[in-house]
Amino acid sequence: MSTDHFDTHRKRLEDAQAALATRSAHTAFRESPSTRVHGEEAPRAGKAAFEARLGQRFAIDQPGTIDWIGEEISPYTGEALGISYPRCDVDTLFGAARAAMPAWRDAGPRARVGLCLEMLAQLADRAFENAHAVMHTAGQSYAMAYAGSGPNALDRGLEALALAWQAQQQVPGEARWQKRFGKDEVVLEKRYRIMPLGPAVVFCCATFPTWNAHPAIFANLATGNPVLVKPHPGCVLPMAITVETLRKVLADNGHDPNLVQLCVDSTTAPLGKVLVEHPQAAIIDFTGSARFGSWVEAHAGGRPCYTETSGVNSVVIESCDSLPAMAAAIAGSVCLFSSQMCTSPQNIYVPAGGIDSAAGHHSADEVRAAIVAAIDAIAEAPARAASVMGTIQSRDTLRLIEHWQQRGAEAGTVLRRSAAYLHPEHPQAWTATPLVIGLGIDRHELYSDEVFGPIAFIIEAADADQALAQATRDAREHGAITAFAYSANEAWLERAEAAFAEAGAALTENLTGAMPLNFAAAYSDLHVSGLNPAGNASLADWSFVAGRFRIAQARRPVSARAQAAG
Amino acid sequence: MSTDHFDTHRKRLEDAQAALATRSAHTAFRESPSTRVHGEEAPRAGKAAFEARLGQRFAIDQPGTIDWIGEEISPYTGEALGISYPRCDVDTLFGAARAAMPAWRDAGPRARVGLCLEMLAQLADRAFENAHAVMHTAGQSYAMAYAGSGPNALDRGLEALALAWQAQQQVPGEARWQKRFGKDEVVLEKRYRIMPLGPAVVFCCATFPTWNAHPAIFANLATGNPVLVKPHPGCVLPMAITVETLRKVLADNGHDPNLVQLCVDSTTAPLGKVLVEHPQAAIIDFTGSARFGSWVEAHAGGRPCYTETSGVNSVVIESCDSLPAMAAAIAGSVCLFSSQMCTSPQNIYVPAGGIDSAAGHHSADEVRAAIVAAIDAIAEAPARAASVMGTIQSRDTLRLIEHWQQRGAEAGTVLRRSAAYLHPEHPQAWTATPLVIGLGIDRHELYSDEVFGPIAFIIEAADADQALAQATRDAREHGAITAFAYSANEAWLERAEAAFAEAGAALTENLTGAMPLNFAAAYSDLHVSGLNPAGNASLADWSFVAGRFRIAQARRPVSARAQAAG
Repeated sequence: MSTDHFDTHRKRLEDAQAALATRSAHTAFRESPSTRVHGEEAPRAGKAAFEARLGQRFAIDQPGTIDWIGEEISPYTGEALGISYPRCDVDTLFGAARAAMPAWRDAGPRARVGLCLEMLAQLADRAFENAHAVMHTAGQSYAMAYAGSGPNALDRGLEALALAWQAQQQVPGEARWQKRFGKDEVVLEKRYRIMPLGPAVVFCCATFPTWNAHPAIFANLATGNPVLVKPHPGCVLPMAITVETLRKVLADNGHDPNLVQLCVDSTTAPLGKVLVEHPQAAIIDFTGSARFGSWVEAHAGGRPCYTETSGVNSVVIESCDSLPAMAAAIAGSVCLFSSQMCTSPQNIYVPAGGIDSAAGHHSADEVRAAIVAAIDAIAEAPARAASVMGTIQSRDTLRLIEHWQQRGAEAGTVLRRSAAYLHPEHPQAWTATPLVIGLGIDRHELYSDEVFGPIAFIIEAADADQALAQATRDAREHGAITAFAYSANEAWLERAEAAFAEAGAALTENLTGAMPLNFAAAYSDLHVSGLNPAGNASLADWSFVAGRFRIAQARRPVSARAQAAG
Repeated sequence: MSTDHFDTHRKRLEDAQAALATRSAHTAFRESPSTRVHGEEAPRAGKAAFEARLGQRFAIDQPGTIDWIGEEISPYTGEALGISYPRCDVDTLFGAARAAMPAWRDAGPRARVGLCLEMLAQLADRAFENAHAVMHTAGQSYAMAYAGSGPNALDRGLEALALAWQAQQQVPGEARWQKRFGKDEVVLEKRYRIMPLGPAVVFCCATFPTWNAHPAIFANLATGNPVLVKPHPGCVLPMAITVETLRKVLADNGHDPNLVQLCVDSTTAPLGKVLVEHPQAAIIDFTGSARFGSWVEAHAGGRPCYTETSGVNSVVIESCDSLPAMAAAIAGSVCLFSSQMCTSPQNIYVPAGGIDSAAGHHSADEVRAAIVAAIDAIAEAPARAASVMGTIQSRDTLRLIEHWQQRGAEAGTVLRRSAAYLHPEHPQAWTATPLVIGLGIDRHELYSDEVFGPIAFIIEAADADQALAQATRDAREHGAITAFAYSANEAWLERAEAAFAEAGAALTENLTGAMPLNFAAAYSDLHVSGLNPAGNASLADWSFVAGRFRIAQARRPVSARAQAAG
């Protein structure tokens, strides 16, 4: 109980702060799942821990448990996980959160941040178990489930924690203030207290739960606010492991575990609106659909509300250095986790007159063909497809692909049909290679909104400027998190940069090679700008942390004795 | 046009940042109006500049001017100032603000902050003119109008500016990021841009316009947002002088003056709701009544909205060192600007059994009598009354005093009647000494809400704990900005400190002497906690500035040449 976790992990916090200041590449955790790094035992134990959960109750000793529910199905096996979680009375959860708050508040920022650092360390120790949990709920490939939903997600949590620490350092705990009023020399001692707001509800999405939720969880805990974690009913296990770990760290260190509680619901009896409208909910953090995100924003009232939803991410091609390299980069990003990321590109604009590259001119047809061929190259190599695409998280998405297979044929040209690929290890896995539909820019009603999953549109524009205008207008009006541009023309790139900055989409220019186009790095890349309908918050900046607490103040004259001593 | 204002004023900015870090006493401006500091000419010129305005149009070359309006009456003379201001078409003002935004955004934080520092310097040069403008609109005494509405207000503006500068420094303009992906060493250069949100509407109050508005104006301008200044129709002149000065600095330095515009309305055709509901309004800053403040908060939608309103500020007396010293301090604060400050105490709790001081025991009657006597001592010395109380800004407040004179007699005991005092220099001045009403704690319906102006309640509680419970509950439920406690009992004071921190009222303990109880110092005292209904924002903390802009990002691979050079 007396371990000073802040001191133990101080360097990790300081390194994160240094990386934030320079926005340089940094990770505090081991990103590779390789047995060369971890040995044989840790990966095996993680898998075994996951398997031991199957068909069991996930026991969390929470107040207000009514019954046990669970509806997760593994997209790798098509079978129910059979894990059940406590369904709890919402009022009781909020009550327990409120009851836990005063002692956590009074522990102060240093103790809270220290314990949060310990939580991150213990979560890192469970990265293999988490990877299997993410695979069999979110459907990610093993490599992504390990790195993207493990260390990379922990880095995003640490990033928000570092910012929350800085924000709470804006005032000292105590100060001495001296000023002359007429003949009086007035000396006051002042005290400042960080005051939390109350229980925060953290909504988690189905496809990338930890990466999006960790920042909110740690920003809230660090600033003194209890957290109710509300997972998507189809993807509970990774968040249940998170909550279990955090509750253990709290209890082991003499704090009330009810500072972190799991609030599970079902698709038939969803709790989302109940939680947002609950009078005890003081902060709302939301990752999920744009539609429910808008509802959340509209119903937050005066409470702090941080949303990350989705939008239409575009690729605008003006020219390029190498057509095959560009096509491979775009194809890799369309294939990555079967475009189930809020950063995946959807609308790929090609000028009607084609483009130039260092190798000469390429017609629009050649550009389309190159992109399709590059997707084929991934889709037709099962091991590569498995590691890049993973599975399709929800059967709804499979149905949506089927729908668009039909609709695309009617409205445009199906440039590439979607089909299942045979996963080398999981023959029953829900898989689907990308569907690619060719459209004219005039068919705006088809591509103006997000279409979730591995469905991409290659849109023919009169020229790159028309494409840029359409892509940025859609970003402003319908939301976009990322954007991608290719051009050898510096002046055009500068214009694209300015236009996408105004539209609030983070622009990646001329990227080819091994890095996925839509990889977003903690400490360096801001995720969501807050400038368009794809969300109002950034992972992570000052505005993500500064409104989660307030500062209370008291002052009194320094006594004669204290003055003499001072 | 080529002056580097940032460099010119760099030390002033750095000193403000240093004071913010330590919360120690600091001022960047000259607080004394004494001719020993300023010479004879500056005070005379300031007064003459004010007088030259009377009966004239206040010419501001703004777009969309429809006609000229003005309804200000000097509380010192009871006569109309006769100054008229441009009434402008609201859509035109917003359009001009939007048009001015891109160039101001592209100028970048350093240029914007540099120019804001120059604006503060030029406002400081007009402190005498401003003092007379504040006297004859807000009704403050000369001393307060000079210091409180001049240098102290500029310090609050500089404080917010320093925070806005820090917030925009959270990301570098450019960064280099390097990471290995498989066999590829990926090197990206990244650019970050500060993106403003859009026009901000800044509502100003009638009694302390500059002190409350400067922080919002400078936080908005520094982060790239144009400002529409909406003064109270009864107190336009100080804000018109401010707008004129800022527009001049902008124009002199090659920027669009429409970055700062005055939006005047009238009591018969108010524009408040129109401005808040305008689709082009991106940010709302509000100082004013709690009632309209609540309406503003409810109608802000997802837009950043910062409110500072009012509440019921309490004094809780448990014991004290010296009854006369405590009574003088309380009386001074009740008299200060005739309690027309949002920090003025209203509800003074006295234990039924009386209190102890170093001199022995004092009955509740003795405590009440001491406070009334201390008020009398100020009220009965006209020169002192003039310098402490100033005038009553609005005839509505005079009517309210009359109403409570009657109501207090019916509901409780009038411990001290209000009456005009004869101002030594302005015999027609609207003046009123404090009305003091004695009540039992059970008459909650009478004292639970703010009663504006020089009306104080001395409330008899069973004991100090009951008083503390009532005062903190009222703060939580009805709002409070300040609180005051007197006790020689350290354990009781600690409890009071914790209770008022939870209630969100800034507590001043055991203060006696020359410093007014409710003096709030820039860089040190946070004004409004955001924890209760008296407002949701603090002057000034990170949360006051961090949400006024967003960060847009672009990244691209470093070219082979740049890599070689790097």
